Formats: sequence, structure tokens, C-alpha cells
Amino acid sequence: MAPVEAEQHPRTALALAAHDASGRVSPIRISRRDTGDDDVAIQILYCGICHSDLHTIKNEWKNANYPVVPGHEIAGLITEVGKNVKKFNVGDKVGVGCMVNTCQSCESCEEGHENHCSKIIFAYNSHDRDGTITYGGYSDMVVVNERFVIRFPDGVPLDKGAPLLCAGITVYNPMKYHGLDEPGKHIGVVGLGGLGHVAVKFAKAFGMRVTVISTSPEKREEAMETLGADAFVVSSDANQMKLGCSFRSLSMAVKGTMHGILNTASASMSMYAYLALLKPQGKMILLGLPEKPLQISAFSLVTGGKTLAGSCMGSIRDTQEMMDFAAKHGLVADVELIGTEEVNEAMERLAKGEVRYRFVIDVGNTLSAASLASSPVPAL
Amino acid sequence: MAPVEAEQHPRTALALAAHDASGRVSPIRISRRDTGDDDVAIQILYCGICHSDLHTIKNEWKNANYPVVPGHEIAGLITEVGKNVKKFNVGDKVGVGCMVNTCQSCESCEEGHENHCSKIIFAYNSHDRDGTITYGGYSDMVVVNERFVIRFPDGVPLDKGAPLLCAGITVYNPMKYHGLDEPGKHIGVVGLGGLGHVAVKFAKAFGMRVTVISTSPEKREEAMETLGADAFVVSSDANQMKLGCSFRSLSMAVKGTMHGILNTASASMSMYAYLALLKPQGKMILLGLPEKPLQISAFSLVTGGKTLAGSCMGSIRDTQEMMDFAAKHGLVADVELIGTEEVNEAMERLAKGEVRYRFVIDVGNTLSAASLASSPVPAL
Repeated sequence: MAPVEAEQHPRTALALAAHDASGRVSPIRISRRDTGDDDVAIQILYCGICHSDLHTIKNEWKNANYPVVPGHEIAGLITEVGKNVKKFNVGDKVGVGCMVNTCQSCESCEEGHENHCSKIIFAYNSHDRDGTITYGGYSDMVVVNERFVIRFPDGVPLDKGAPLLCAGITVYNPMKYHGLDEPGKHIGVVGLGGLGHVAVKFAKAFGMRVTVISTSPEKREEAMETLGADAFVVSSDANQMKLGCSFRSLSMAVKGTMHGILNTASASMSMYAYLALLKPQGKMILLGLPEKPLQISAFSLVTGGKTLAGSCMGSIRDTQEMMDFAAKHGLVADVELIGTEEVNEAMERLAKGEVRYRFVIDVGNTLSAASLASSPVPAL
Repeated sequence: MAPVEAEQHPRTALALAAHDASGRVSPIRISRRDTGDDDVAIQILYCGICHSDLHTIKNEWKNANYPVVPGHEIAGLITEVGKNVKKFNVGDKVGVGCMVNTCQSCESCEEGHENHCSKIIFAYNSHDRDGTITYGGYSDMVVVNERFVIRFPDGVPLDKGAPLLCAGITVYNPMKYHGLDEPGKHIGVVGLGGLGHVAVKFAKAFGMRVTVISTSPEKREEAMETLGADAFVVSSDANQMKLGCSFRSLSMAVKGTMHGILNTASASMSMYAYLALLKPQGKMILLGLPEKPLQISAFSLVTGGKTLAGSCMGSIRDTQEMMDFAAKHGLVADVELIGTEEVNEAMERLAKGEVRYRFVIDVGNTLSAASLASSPVPAL
């Protein structure tokens, strides 16, 4: 099929887009496809800002297709349903996460792990089936195949629930898959950011013992008192991590005690001291994507039969299960709600780790032709 | 408890010991403990030569307690049983593998994974409970707690079965633990040595599709025709492995097709090309112990949710299960039987990878006072 230019879609929408690697976004008019037979149209009310958004708009992963409209923590209301749609009705509260389509026929898709489909189409910056580039949730509406839409259960608010669609499933999925969801087990969470803070919440909801491992001593109080972690370990300074020295602060008291570690850090680090925290047969799950290779001593894994595993998103079925679990346990993300005019500042703060713990854009109230009237909005 | 000198044990035995890091062994008289209430005494008839023996006697792991009597693939006959012994009788065909005791009370021991006990006592070069250093199977007899003795099932010969006690369980255990034992699944075996060749045999006995990945093109015929592998891939030369270039020979035909890979290589290598052979959620199991750290790209694990796990030996229960499985399937190691006078030459050949696929010492016929009469045997 010949690629179709995005502007050939019949419907216009407002969005924030990055046009270059500066890390800044600005208002733009984009086009969206008509609601197909299997699609729903969604009025976007909130969208979380994931660190991936920043990596992508800055082209740090060398794959940006500008203009990039980021956003894969999308929450809103259904405004229209295609004629084959069975799961949803107009007015339903729904969300869209990292993926908006897959091949639906490969082994991964058929086994219910469509997040590993090699033809996955991401919510933004991805080649859609019609050849256009997908635009994400920094926008006032989106059209998505109903299979890739998540229902917001009662009790999960759209704003604080939006980050669960990426950060939430990213931590929930490996906990379930690797058996790190059992009451009484001890789990470590490396890094207390967008992923880490919801990891603590899920682990506590599973009834686990949680130790936060962070480079920032000042996060101790919030980790333990606000988020409910059971212990807090300062992973010493960056030099020690880089050199793989043993950490003074990773004391014997925690060494060899953890069934699992969720590693949300995106900086390269020696794994030696972290793997030593695991019990025999313990598992460290990598969720971040440092650019440089990790240094792994085979001894650290072979002795004790330990596992280092990567994890990437989760299936739609698991994402719905995670949202339903969150509803049951009153679990939401801690968010800082911002308007569209604050997104660029938020990106700068995100780069410095200055957010507790997730920015969510109040799209519904701040992204409209009226709200942007003071500045002209160019069409794509 | 104060350490007791080895020579204070009441019973003498003949052995081959390394006295320094030269990599050579020579005859020696050692002492063995009396048969305790829970012990059995074993007349050793055969002992396999594991690569660990060579690493240890050369002090490559910096832990040699000379004199070192190596050997943890021990097969023989019971000559005496302690009064509490229930499982065995005099005359039984038995084996002893890597471990001869554990604490029997920690979490690992209680969960039946005593191979991960932090107080594990290895068959040789290890501090025994009485403070002496353990001596392994390059010896004419040994006394072992019955819990750590494996029964040789009918149909498994002592000579060709001996290597299963280390090489066999080392590959069998992770295949069972990680679900790499299901008919029709595709497994890769990196390295066709002592471990690799029994890995191929177990995988075929499980009904799996097996691809051997080797640096040695000349092993193709034996891999496929003698051992029954389904495919053979040359992993190109050492430079390509080191540099992590894609291998011309790891063609698209095998990329992304494997459920698991057993990596028996003990050389450091970039994991990039190997991890690319795995399907989504595939697992690479490390069995070798390269001295230098491995370089792992987080992308290689996170994309596709892949696992890199270490594995070390197996429990006694699993070792017995493995031996019974081997008996049922007529599975034995391919061995080259040698006399005690050939051990030093065998060590040199082992260092160069010149063995198909395991040396086994014919202890029963070649290690006796008479056979060693031509040279004086010093006492310890």
C-alpha cells in the first residue's frame, strides 16, 4: 500500500508536536483518520508524560519521525464507535497505552503477548498500516482500534490513572510474569521515579516487603512514609556504581535477601552490587534502557542461579487486569497536573528528575482552539 | 570446632593430587574419615575429568587449597554403610557429584535447592565440617553422607554415566527449571564440549529441536550425525564474537527462532548476536564462567522481554531424577577412558578442547598400590 500523507486524513485535531531534537513541543494542527468499523474515537482529557516521550522528541533513540506528537498514557471519553465495536459505547471512560495495533496473527499475538509482536504499531512515532506516522496523546482526540483500548474501571480517576497505562503495566507485568507478586516476598525497587513509585505501590498492594534503592538520600522519607516502602537504601554515588565497588550502604542486612529487583534506572551501572542483593534464584528485571552496555559478571548470575531479565510493556489483557487491580486497591499514580503551556518546562524538569512522580497534561482544559487563541496554530 | 588435619583421619587412601598451579597431578596417600552413622564408604571405580578440575588445580579461580585432589564425577560401589543409612546397601552402584554436604536447614535446603546453600561443601577443595579440606574422586575411595549419594539406575554404566553427575545435571537442571524441556521447542546449544554434548542428548530426549552453535566448523558432522542435532551454526571467529558484530553465519533463518539457549562457553563474548537468536520471552542460560564481565545491551533483553539466567549444578533430588531419565532414554556421555598415568596428558588436551567429549579415569583398574609400585607414593 502506498503511504498516505497524514494531512490526507479527513479529520483535524489539535496537538503538541516536536519538530526537531531541541526537546521542545509547540501547538500544531494534525489530521486523524475517520472512525473505522473496528475503531473508537476518543476525546482526550489527560495524557501522562513518560520519559520515553523525552527520549523520542530529542531523538536520543535515533528514530524520531518529525513532527513527533508524543504521549502514550492517554485517558479520555469515547465520542464515537465503529459499527463492529462491541466492547465500548459513547461516553465510556477509556485509556490507550503504548501500542495501538499489532499483526494479530503471529505467535506472540496468538499467545496473548502482542506487546512482543514484531509488527507492533506504537501510539506515536510509528508507521501505521496506511503508511502514516502515528500521533500520540498530546492531542485533543485520537482514533484507535477497540482491541487496543482499555476500560477505566470505576474508582480510577482519568488524571491519576493515565500513567498506569505505561508506567503501571511496565512494572505490573514483570511482577506477575516472574512470580514477584506473592505476599511476604521481598522486592527491591531501584530508582524512585515515574516507574519506581508505582512499583512500590503495586508491590505493597501484593502484600510484599519493599526496599527502595535510590541514589537520592532525600527520597527516604517520601519512599517510606508517603509511598509505604518498608526500607530504603542509598545506592551510594554514581562513581561507585560506575566502578562496581561494593556499596557501603548496601549493608549485609539486605544482601542476599531479595526475591526480585525491579530496576527502573536508565543509567548504565555495574550490576555486581545489585545482583548480590538477590537471594538464590532471585530475579532482577530491567525496565530502563541505558545507552551503554551493562557489565555483568557471569559469576554473579551462575552462583545462586540468578536471573537478569528485560521486560517491555504488557499485553492488552494484562493492562486491563492491572487497571482492574488498581481500582480494587485504590491505587493511582502521584501526579503533577499541568497545562499545555507548561509542557516544555515540565520536560526540562523531567530531564533533571524533578517530578513527584509523573506529569500529566490537562489536555481537556488547556488544549483547545480557544485556549491557544493567543498564538496562531500552524497546520501540518 | 578446631580444624583437624587431614592426616589425622584414621583411614588411608590413594589419590592423585595437584601440589601447585602447574596443572599437573601426581600420586599421593591421603586419609579419609571413618564411615559415620549417616555415611557410606564408596570404592571409586571411575571419575570424570571436568573443566572445573583444571581451573581449580591451576588456581585460576584463586581458591586452591593445595594439595588438591580433584574429581566430582565419581562412580563406584558401596563397601560399607553407617548404622543410620537407609537408602543404600553394600554393593550398590552409586555416584557422587559436586556437593557432599550442605547446612540442611537454610531456606534453600528446606526448599530442596540445596545446591544454592551458602554453606555448601563441595566434593573437593572445600572446608568440611571438621575443618579438613575435602578430597575428590581422583582417589580409590571416599566416605560421603548418604543424602549426597546418587543411585546408578540399571542401564547406566558407571564409566559413561559418571559425567552425568556434573555435566549432566548442569544442563538438565536449567532445562527443567526454565521450561526448556518441552517437545517441539527449539533450543540452541553454544559450545560442543563436555556440557554441550550431553545438552544435545537431553534436548533430543525431551523431543526438542536442537541447533548447535560452535566456533568449530569441523564439529558439524559429529553434532548432526553422531549426536543428532537438527542444525549447526558456526558462530564465526573470535574477533566477531568479541566485537559483537552480527555473524554472517547466524543467518536470518535462525534469528528469533529459539525458545532457549544453553551457553556452555567459558570465554567472554558479546551476547548481542546470541540474544538475537531468541524468540520473544526466550531465555539464555549461562553455564560457563568466563573471567571477564559480559557486555549486555539492555535493549537486547528489554525488547522481547528476554531472560539471561545463570545456573549452577542441581539438587540431589533433581540429580537422581536426571539419572533415572538418562536410564529410561539410554542416555550416556561420550567418554574417552584413560588410566591414571594419562591424566596429565588429558589435562593438556582438555585445555585445548581436544576431547570427544569427556575424559573418564579408570580408577578401579589403574589406581592401586600395585599399579603405582614403580614410583614411590608420598603420604600427605
